[in-house]
Amino acid sequence: MASNPHTVEEIFKDYSARRIVAIRALTHDVDKLYELYDSGKDNLCLYGHSNKVWEVTLPLEEVPANLPEPTLEINFARDDVSRKDWISLVAMHSDSWLLSLAFYFGFHLNHNERKRLFGLINTLSTIFQFVTNNKPIKDMPTIVSGSKFWGSTED
Amino acid sequence: MASNPHTVEEIFKDYSARRIVAIRALTHDVDKLYELYDSGKDNLCLYGHSNKVWEVTLPLEEVPANLPEPTLEINFARDDVSRKDWISLVAMHSDSWLLSLAFYFGFHLNHNERKRLFGLINTLSTIFQFVTNNKPIKDMPTIVSGSKFWGSTED
Repeated sequence: MASNPHTVEEIFKDYSARRIVAIRALTHDVDKLYELYDSGKDNLCLYGHSNKVWEVTLPLEEVPANLPEPTLEINFARDDVSRKDWISLVAMHSDSWLLSLAFYFGFHLNHNERKRLFGLINTLSTIFQFVTNNKPIKDMPTIVSGSKFWGSTED
Repeated sequence: MASNPHTVEEIFKDYSARRIVAIRALTHDVDKLYELYDSGKDNLCLYGHSNKVWEVTLPLEEVPANLPEPTLEINFARDDVSRKDWISLVAMHSDSWLLSLAFYFGFHLNHNERKRLFGLINTLSTIFQFVTNNKPIKDMPTIVSGSKFWGSTED
């Protein structure tokens, strides 16, 4: 496994990559995502990976849990809300997860480094803002056909 | 159930209350905490509640999951690391959870409000900093004997 990002810049790069992937899952690939969440399995999570792919899968069964996990069982909500609301809910949880992950990686950062990291993160719209149509054009992920993992080519 | 905090100030107040409780669990009440994690149950989580109590319990089984959950199964790690490292690990995950919760509550905040919320949060040391002895005196939770829930009387 690659080592976790450590510096403010590395953590922000990781955050940005995961965010773009999650946005892609919730926009261009949303039909596929919606379908995957209907597989009958419990505890499915949307993972936005820093290698530019997204995945819907069960939580890692590594012991001990070494990273904050995405919210479990969000798939249960699917039948209770409209598709639009479900997408917004997944976006909110994805934002929450990405932020927790960034500051988990940055547990060792001091006050000013934490401030700088958040400042960088806050230059980007949240995934929730993006999927609810508050989206600057420059944020739109590049669409690539035929990718096995629905990945993005953006940096 | 009380409604979720909404404004920057409400969210920060909620964050602060949960943080103090988590610090208390990991300092004054750490023997009790350590013991509770050894109960043989899987999936135990440390919850710092905004009503100034902490709790070690199974994740809420509400469907849909309506709040980000603390990291699951952190109790599995207990036998693999020293007590000091285990406390640090729980502290890191608690920081991560509290931040994700704050910005989940604040999903509707705009850029400047998010900046302000993080600025307020960043005036406080992290729980990790606190339990690893980087603790300003003013942050020390008040010790109250005999509380059923190991609560703090601090505001």
